[in-house]
Amino acid sequence: MVIEVLRLGHRRKRDERLTTHVCLIARALGVDRVLVAEEDAELEKTIRSVVERFGGDFEIKTGVGYKTVMRNFKGTKVHLTMYGLPLKETITKIPKGDILVIVGSEKVPGEVYHMADLNIAVGSQPHSEAGALAIFLDRLTGGSWEEKKFDGGQMEVIPTAHGKGVRKK
Amino acid sequence: MVIEVLRLGHRRKRDERLTTHVCLIARALGVDRVLVAEEDAELEKTIRSVVERFGGDFEIKTGVGYKTVMRNFKGTKVHLTMYGLPLKETITKIPKGDILVIVGSEKVPGEVYHMADLNIAVGSQPHSEAGALAIFLDRLTGGSWEEKKFDGGQMEVIPTAHGKGVRKK
Repeated sequence: MVIEVLRLGHRRKRDERLTTHVCLIARALGVDRVLVAEEDAELEKTIRSVVERFGGDFEIKTGVGYKTVMRNFKGTKVHLTMYGLPLKETITKIPKGDILVIVGSEKVPGEVYHMADLNIAVGSQPHSEAGALAIFLDRLTGGSWEEKKFDGGQMEVIPTAHGKGVRKK
Repeated sequence: MVIEVLRLGHRRKRDERLTTHVCLIARALGVDRVLVAEEDAELEKTIRSVVERFGGDFEIKTGVGYKTVMRNFKGTKVHLTMYGLPLKETITKIPKGDILVIVGSEKVPGEVYHMADLNIAVGSQPHSEAGALAIFLDRLTGGSWEEKKFDGGQMEVIPTAHGKGVRKK
């Protein structure tokens, strides 16, 4: 199963940190690639630097155009939105196979709701696309991301009860 | 069980949106109150406006000072950090009762790691405090937040397969 995340409505500067968080969540939870609809070379650099330091083969591509990506994706397109159907009952309807998870920002074009196979609400309340993505991926993978190895890179964290530990790889 | 979230290292402007997301996640997942170490009247206004519109009794207080809050809290203090012990094995060690979940930003003072009863890593990878908080709360509550009612407020979302629906309360 390949999991990709498509981030919509990214505005440089204003969304810089939030989109970075979306990418970090995706990487930590085992997503293969994040596609950002709008171009942002700075964001690509930030994320590639994390991959260089901490390993794994996570990819990022910006400036992809959401319509093209959604039209060409062979697999299930899941749009996370507070207006969608409840997570608990809808996540069971996702067929096996590749998944494109679409997360917006404040304004998502109406056609995204129709191009998506499933519109899923991680709570029908004003929410955070970062938080919704994290919970969705955790549930989708059944928490298997916790066993994921990030090969390569320069360093790794040593889990510690009270303090910080890092070692060179 | 009362759940509170303490947000550290919030810088106005720079962290405005990320801290807003932390608050939205906390509210949507049934947290009772968010405490923000640093003062930010604008942030309080934003969050209170969400509560007014969408209901519930979620509270926010800023400018609380993290040491005072951590020292006075009667219950378990859980700090979410990529340097902590793995989520899966540590979450089972949280005793029943009230919980203070501490989430930092980029730089967390060293003493927070020692004042916390548990330092828990939602993945030992560079992560998002928003994503970590979302997964932690989902696991902690066993997903019971999905059944939560938000009484009062002016409107509510009508879960919809393809589109947006909102009704007045």
